[in-house]
Amino acid sequence: MEPIAWVGDRVRILDQTLLPHQERHLELRDHRQVAEAIRALRVRGAPLIGIAAAYGLALAALHAPTKDMDAFLAFLEDAAEELRATRPTAVNLSWAVKRLLGKARACTTPHEAQLVVVAEAQALHHQQTEDDLGLARQGALLLPEGAAVLTHCNTGALATGGYGTALGIVKAAWEMGRISHVYLTETRPLLQGARLTAWELTRHGIPCTLVVDGAVGLLLARGLAQAVVVGADRIARSGDVANKIGTYVLAVLAKEHGVPFIVAAPTSTIDLSCPQGAAIPIEERSPEEVRTVMGLPVAPPGVEALNPAFDITPAHLVTAIVTERGVAYPPYGESLPALMSLPEVSHG
Amino acid sequence: MEPIAWVGDRVRILDQTLLPHQERHLELRDHRQVAEAIRALRVRGAPLIGIAAAYGLALAALHAPTKDMDAFLAFLEDAAEELRATRPTAVNLSWAVKRLLGKARACTTPHEAQLVVVAEAQALHHQQTEDDLGLARQGALLLPEGAAVLTHCNTGALATGGYGTALGIVKAAWEMGRISHVYLTETRPLLQGARLTAWELTRHGIPCTLVVDGAVGLLLARGLAQAVVVGADRIARSGDVANKIGTYVLAVLAKEHGVPFIVAAPTSTIDLSCPQGAAIPIEERSPEEVRTVMGLPVAPPGVEALNPAFDITPAHLVTAIVTERGVAYPPYGESLPALMSLPEVSHG
Repeated sequence: MEPIAWVGDRVRILDQTLLPHQERHLELRDHRQVAEAIRALRVRGAPLIGIAAAYGLALAALHAPTKDMDAFLAFLEDAAEELRATRPTAVNLSWAVKRLLGKARACTTPHEAQLVVVAEAQALHHQQTEDDLGLARQGALLLPEGAAVLTHCNTGALATGGYGTALGIVKAAWEMGRISHVYLTETRPLLQGARLTAWELTRHGIPCTLVVDGAVGLLLARGLAQAVVVGADRIARSGDVANKIGTYVLAVLAKEHGVPFIVAAPTSTIDLSCPQGAAIPIEERSPEEVRTVMGLPVAPPGVEALNPAFDITPAHLVTAIVTERGVAYPPYGESLPALMSLPEVSHG
Repeated sequence: MEPIAWVGDRVRILDQTLLPHQERHLELRDHRQVAEAIRALRVRGAPLIGIAAAYGLALAALHAPTKDMDAFLAFLEDAAEELRATRPTAVNLSWAVKRLLGKARACTTPHEAQLVVVAEAQALHHQQTEDDLGLARQGALLLPEGAAVLTHCNTGALATGGYGTALGIVKAAWEMGRISHVYLTETRPLLQGARLTAWELTRHGIPCTLVVDGAVGLLLARGLAQAVVVGADRIARSGDVANKIGTYVLAVLAKEHGVPFIVAAPTSTIDLSCPQGAAIPIEERSPEEVRTVMGLPVAPPGVEALNPAFDITPAHLVTAIVTERGVAYPPYGESLPALMSLPEVSHG
């Protein structure tokens, strides 16, 4: 079930487009194959695509010309550009790429840089797993005792390569005996809730109920869930949150029903250079994803469709933002920069 | 494209479960086949299932024993019970059945009652078509000039057997040159928006854009739609509205963005005997409809799912209720009974 692994000179991924019906692994040999896997959502989830991009750059380092540092770095930067262009919204991707490029540039020989880039990609992956656990434990304590929790999309191990963000909180809270039930939305168009979150929760034996995205209003109106927990693809300095399409709907309804709306994300998802939500680019994906369901046509062929992959939840609807370094509360314009100025969590 | 027709001693329906990919008609010979068609959503839409139930009862009248009036009425009442039990939320169904039973009981011989019941079912169908047109023209005038309109589920000709309710308004407004564009939700689990509304709008050449249900927040936040228009399956005396799951989500978001939220329904959908939304029974359908899409499994098999077919929109979120007899505004506790006490619209 490990969604990504570095295996010598390749990256092995679990092809998430085939879940839950098929568990097929793919071995990616170069950064082009990694870029394709990110574009096609074989690996998805903001933290995981950060790790995938890092491994993609590690593969590029292994294939780069090693005659001199300039040629090496030029190759690496081209690869970085291709990886960065795959998906615009999740900032973890460009964060990881930038971090690895910085490490490479600090090296004096291509061979040294190869070792450093591969090691740093692995370190990022390892750090994600550790960070997820810290985030999950802190977030679990924010949930009302005995609550049923509503979540959206997939933010579990499949989304981070570690323990998960929002779903990590859910899992930790379940293990602590703090929550009683999980409601999950199917999350059209690509059904990450129905396909991936249902699969993860079932494997963990956590009692859960799947609903269509339109049922979230009735669910909260009936008082069935006492907290909403979601992930994020990018968080602006203001605390505005870009996350999977449908998240903003949940946030408005949570406010309408007085239910806490909690966002869980590693600090690599926070983009202090982005002042507010309106500045976050929203990826528009193919209308074909809306006209079809897992390849099956549902709408009349050719009917126009709009397919924004994310929406923006304004900061005033967000009760708390949980990261591996701690929990931020409003006003986020102050709490997020304070959190980011803390030293990185060290894991010995 | 006629969704229902009386053809001598049978009812011909368009099997809506096969749209938009296949236009197949079925000929139903008795009320049991009509009940099956309603349960399986081959005919659906609150007004249309009222007409279907009326035709079902007409078929029952043709097959009832005609030796004496008691046996005839007993057979008819059994059939009425079976038809009423098919779907609990839409009140048009029991309204139509009650109306036909009343006509039958007023007759003196079974043969007279057969003629009267068949004629009354046809009259109901004819009246629906006329009423739809009146409703549509009144509703169209409520839309902001030049607006793009957001609608949910299917409320067109396929839902009423006439011109449509909410989609009737949209069509009339388009013909009047009052609106510029239509956004429609796919409406999971059964995709009546993607399958049926997209099909109707495309046939009418009305420019439209399909979105997933979760995209309604972003759509309103971007200011893409200036009015929301939906149908209803039952309206309580208070003005609370039962309609397709997801409607309440739209209503909360419309309020959040200051966009009018208009409900369109014939007066046969208004249930003055029902004091408020909490008293409206909500049909729970099979979880399999959530775990699958048009028969294709999407979630892990056996994962628990909740499948309420409708939700309740509280009256305070409803800008206006458009009927064939006129438009009701808040407070609905006064305006709806006043509307219902008006004489039925006569069509000469």
